[in-house]
Amino acid sequence: MIRSASWQFLWVGLLALSGAWADEVKHGTLVTEQLTSSILAENRIGLNTTRGIKVLLPPGYAESRKSYPVVYFLHNTWWSPEQMFREGHAVKLLERGFAKQVVKEFIFVVSDYTTPTTGSIYENSPVSGRWLDFTVDELVPFIDERFRTLPHRNSRAVVGDFFGGRGALKLAMVHADVFSVAYALHPVATGNGSSAWTFLQIDWPKIHQAKSFDEVGSDGRTRLFVTISQAFLPNLDRPPFYCDFFMEMKDGQPTLHVENTRKTKAGFLLEETLNESAANLRTMRGLALDWGRFDMTYPHVESNRTFSRLLEELGVDHEAEEYRGGPWDRLWTDDGRFYARVLPFLERHLVF
Amino acid sequence: MIRSASWQFLWVGLLALSGAWADEVKHGTLVTEQLTSSILAENRIGLNTTRGIKVLLPPGYAESRKSYPVVYFLHNTWWSPEQMFREGHAVKLLERGFAKQVVKEFIFVVSDYTTPTTGSIYENSPVSGRWLDFTVDELVPFIDERFRTLPHRNSRAVVGDFFGGRGALKLAMVHADVFSVAYALHPVATGNGSSAWTFLQIDWPKIHQAKSFDEVGSDGRTRLFVTISQAFLPNLDRPPFYCDFFMEMKDGQPTLHVENTRKTKAGFLLEETLNESAANLRTMRGLALDWGRFDMTYPHVESNRTFSRLLEELGVDHEAEEYRGGPWDRLWTDDGRFYARVLPFLERHLVF
Amino acid sequence: MIRSASWQFLWVGLLALSGAWADEVKHGTLVTEQLTSSILAENRIGLNTTRGIKVLLPPGYAESRKSYPVVYFLHNTWWSPEQMFREGHAVKLLERGFAKQVVKEFIFVVSDYTTPTTGSIYENSPVSGRWLDFTVDELVPFIDERFRTLPHRNSRAVVGDFFGGRGALKLAMVHADVFSVAYALHPVATGNGSSAWTFLQIDWPKIHQAKSFDEVGSDGRTRLFVTISQAFLPNLDRPPFYCDFFMEMKDGQPTLHVENTRKTKAGFLLEETLNESAANLRTMRGLALDWGRFDMTYPHVESNRTFSRLLEELGVDHEAEEYRGGPWDRLWTDDGRFYARVLPFLERHLVF
Amino acid sequence: MIRSASWQFLWVGLLALSGAWADEVKHGTLVTEQLTSSILAENRIGLNTTRGIKVLLPPGYAESRKSYPVVYFLHNTWWSPEQMFREGHAVKLLERGFAKQVVKEFIFVVSDYTTPTTGSIYENSPVSGRWLDFTVDELVPFIDERFRTLPHRNSRAVVGDFFGGRGALKLAMVHADVFSVAYALHPVATGNGSSAWTFLQIDWPKIHQAKSFDEVGSDGRTRLFVTISQAFLPNLDRPPFYCDFFMEMKDGQPTLHVENTRKTKAGFLLEETLNESAANLRTMRGLALDWGRFDMTYPHVESNRTFSRLLEELGVDHEAEEYRGGPWDRLWTDDGRFYARVLPFLERHLVF
Repeated sequence: MIRSASWQFLWVGLLALSGAWADEVKHGTLVTEQLTSSILAENRIGLNTTRGIKVLLPPGYAESRKSYPVVYFLHNTWWSPEQMFREGHAVKLLERGFAKQVVKEFIFVVSDYTTPTTGSIYENSPVSGRWLDFTVDELVPFIDERFRTLPHRNSRAVVGDFFGGRGALKLAMVHADVFSVAYALHPVATGNGSSAWTFLQIDWPKIHQAKSFDEVGSDGRTRLFVTISQAFLPNLDRPPFYCDFFMEMKDGQPTLHVENTRKTKAGFLLEETLNESAANLRTMRGLALDWGRFDMTYPHVESNRTFSRLLEELGVDHEAEEYRGGPWDRLWTDDGRFYARVLPFLERHLVF
Repeated sequence: MIRSASWQFLWVGLLALSGAWADEVKHGTLVTEQLTSSILAENRIGLNTTRGIKVLLPPGYAESRKSYPVVYFLHNTWWSPEQMFREGHAVKLLERGFAKQVVKEFIFVVSDYTTPTTGSIYENSPVSGRWLDFTVDELVPFIDERFRTLPHRNSRAVVGDFFGGRGALKLAMVHADVFSVAYALHPVATGNGSSAWTFLQIDWPKIHQAKSFDEVGSDGRTRLFVTISQAFLPNLDRPPFYCDFFMEMKDGQPTLHVENTRKTKAGFLLEETLNESAANLRTMRGLALDWGRFDMTYPHVESNRTFSRLLEELGVDHEAEEYRGGPWDRLWTDDGRFYARVLPFLERHLVF
Repeated sequence: MIRSASWQFLWVGLLALSGAWADEVKHGTLVTEQLTSSILAENRIGLNTTRGIKVLLPPGYAESRKSYPVVYFLHNTWWSPEQMFREGHAVKLLERGFAKQVVKEFIFVVSDYTTPTTGSIYENSPVSGRWLDFTVDELVPFIDERFRTLPHRNSRAVVGDFFGGRGALKLAMVHADVFSVAYALHPVATGNGSSAWTFLQIDWPKIHQAKSFDEVGSDGRTRLFVTISQAFLPNLDRPPFYCDFFMEMKDGQPTLHVENTRKTKAGFLLEETLNESAANLRTMRGLALDWGRFDMTYPHVESNRTFSRLLEELGVDHEAEEYRGGPWDRLWTDDGRFYARVLPFLERHLVF
Repeated sequence: MIRSASWQFLWVGLLALSGAWADEVKHGTLVTEQLTSSILAENRIGLNTTRGIKVLLPPGYAESRKSYPVVYFLHNTWWSPEQMFREGHAVKLLERGFAKQVVKEFIFVVSDYTTPTTGSIYENSPVSGRWLDFTVDELVPFIDERFRTLPHRNSRAVVGDFFGGRGALKLAMVHADVFSVAYALHPVATGNGSSAWTFLQIDWPKIHQAKSFDEVGSDGRTRLFVTISQAFLPNLDRPPFYCDFFMEMKDGQPTLHVENTRKTKAGFLLEETLNESAANLRTMRGLALDWGRFDMTYPHVESNRTFSRLLEELGVDHEAEEYRGGPWDRLWTDDGRFYARVLPFLERHLVF
């Protein structure tokens, strides 16, 4: 930013005034905590109830006495906190954002939402875990107890990407009492898009024959729809998956089960419960979603466009930007969505 | 094709078989009846309760003793039965279709759905008329009484174009007990499409200042939304239109009224009540919609695509073709949608 | 169709007049011919130059002296004539269509377009075969020589599905002198749709490391793009695939090669050469495409919509229907697209 | 941020650093210049060759000796510089942006592109004016001569909204030698979108009967297509409009003229010449477009999505954000696109 080479002392003087402009970045402290959940004990998929939680304390935390807002990050289904910090450059971007005064300091929390199956899709289910309850009733109090937080919705944000983006929106929809700021990075399952559920390429015979989750095989969508079924069609009397399915076998053929389809869509697709949660959403201090238009699963793109329209028509203030890129390539880059959009958004809307 | 036991008819039948190929067309009889409605007396827009009804009796009607299925045609909002027979070539196409054995003979009924405002949008409203009730409780019995009909849902079809297409679908959704076959030609308001209601180009200040429907001016969409408001937001205490609006004036500005918006959408957009009416629709003998992809009001196109998908996911058997053309240019042509699609569809699904 | 049980002799009389109405279906004769191609000898992928050709002679062929139109069917990339006759019910549907007078009799030809890789995509390439030349310069003359055909474009149609649909359109675009009727069933690669080529999920490292086509692996899209590259980016000096690619490796990373991308798109996507071939297309006696809206590869759907619009704006008369269904589920059913749409279309446009 | 070598400036600089946060805004100077154009003398629509040019000199201009980058703003077709400064809040936003160090100071130029018809659509035409030539050969040199500019592409940006956005992209496509930064706000005519030209609601009979532009009437699209025809189908021998049309009258009916349609599309729709101009665009220091998804003319939205995809596939680096809003409601608000997106973009890409 500063091009002149002379007047070095003045330059130093400026630095003294504000280190931000000189790329002098201070480091935060990354700690890992363990939380043993009671809520997650209720499940049929073998969840580990002891969850690792990564917490980045901002650079000024150690030396100050002040309390900080907390930003909860919900990682995507196939990720973990470890992967996220390894590949996502979160620490680097956060520290730079703090240093450059893009955003004031906050505590950044990433809990572990992995499962033995495809990971949390950020729902409550007696079969696959009550992840929303876990977040609100165990994780948030745990953090507020252990760290110097501003323990109020005004100073609490939830951010997530892909399925975690869905989670961020869902929490805003049902727990605006806990979070007042939400930013969903390329959320999925906000709606449906053009593809018909009867044509989703899911290997139903394999699901219906499988004796365990392993036998479902490696196809991503097929695996995912077991998880989705466990979330929205729980049936504790039906091993091995303890759920029903929106396609059931009939005369040896996968056949649309209308009522199960309706239920699954009603639970899975966020737009289906938007009317009911609009009042909550209107209380948000800040609500945003964004997504890359080149997601090869085009319904993700279409759904988010529709979701934005529905929010608009419900009088819910929000931002909704569709950008050049795919679901992940612009997230953690130096001037990517996390740095250039999420951080300033938190700055604008959180109470520090 | 041949059902009569009489020699004469067989002779005729043979002629029909060969004559069909020779374009020897027999003429039907077009009669105009008057029906004085009690139901339509309830309204605030000055409806004429005496409705003209055009009935085309098929060529064989006069000389036979048999009873016929009835096809009710719902004309578009800005049309009338007169215009339809004048410009729509309906008689010519029907007579040719009968002659060529595209479809067996039926009685074709077009009632008058015009109003002093923009015409029926095929809904029940205490302000603008209970048009669905009129159709089911007065028109159908009237026709069954006056003509040799097969007075059963299996032999009753409803067909309409544009707003009349919406009407055909709506009647299938709520009166599958009366009609078992429905074909919607380029229906509108099946859903929403991409455009947000807050951006619809409606002249709200004009509506809110108007002392009469005339003062609403000549803009088509603005006029239409008065009618839509009268249908779905009736308010008998609020002259001159006796309805509320989804945009109300606030501090001199048209402002989104969330609850009114929700109500209007819930009533106007057919997809909003599709879950509830799916059971009815699954009992239909035949259900079809089609539309031209070059409708300049693109949400019409998008909505119908979505409507088809929703039917698919609800297990409702149907046809849904999007064709090259606009809303009206392919309807009444020699090989257009009415002749080449509606007539064979009626042949396949009506009980004759 | 005939419901009365009496008057049996009359019934017989009617049958004598027209067997069509009584579901009495006459059988055609399916013969398999061998054609040894010179044109296909030029290739680098080990093409078998002796091609099996299935020919269905219509029921009346044997006993008549007359000459017949010929309909060439182009099978999809992953199919073969054997599969098509086994699974496609083509013979049954054709015989029924002839019997019911849906269409007058014609000769139906299905040549073998399989290859050791993913099959012909109906293009001319020095690497993967000059399939268009083969069709026009060898197959058509071969059939005209061996059978009683009407050897003129007016009596020659080309029909195909998926990649074969692309082939049908391509032949109409460049060989309207040979074919005057074309019907493309769910054609692909007519255009691009929403997805960006930089985001296509192709395993480029695998392609660039492979020493043979087998090593490309089993991913469908990855395999296909080798074939596409061989068709539009031939490079006889570059084993093992003898082609360039639109993503080349640079510093170990698949990197967009702009010129190669442009060339591949210009060749592969039919809309890119539509301006040039519009004059040809305007000479067609009949041109149609249709497609199912629930193709999970949504760009197929979008592309066909755009293709129809471009034809419209170029003044090319055509039909273009988007129907409820996926790419294949409505093709060979009793009242599916082949029976209910292709056959009547051939009847309307071929000279018999 | 700080480039001056003087103590005084550093003092000011420090104030700016801290003052920024205190909303202490310094004022620029708005001057109006007159430029008499030779190039615009060539026209048939009665252009005023003396053009008013509004120039906002930044707050520091008067007291400094330095030279500044120049940002040219192209106003929309129905606007004028006067309206823009009156309604667009440009001065206020620029001054705030300078004060808050969102962007370093530059000279902001808005020339008058109004015409007696619908205004410039930023093209060269012997009938309606060579506006691109005017901009590049007269306006830019005029500004460089009169003001302390950095007279180099690296320090020259072009920004515009709606038709002006089209202009900004067009100038980048054909005059990357003059401008190195371009930002198009809700540009139109980048491509086509879903609507077919044969179905555009243009009152062709009125155009073909009109003796003057006034007689074309008040319909916006109809008027606009006269202007478009004058730009891309000039015909100096054909009064009163001196152009041909893509629909010509034939037997009293507006009839598609294929060649004229092709020419109009090739000129009007920017995507049609993107392959040719990609090399230019790849030299841009910064290229961006954005648009509101709730534009009721949905093809605008679709076109921009496609334009972004084509840039992507041509390896042209760019930003392309679709935001919640319509074409104009988010442009000039306090945190709107101009302030929150354009200004930081100029900061990142211009050489100051």
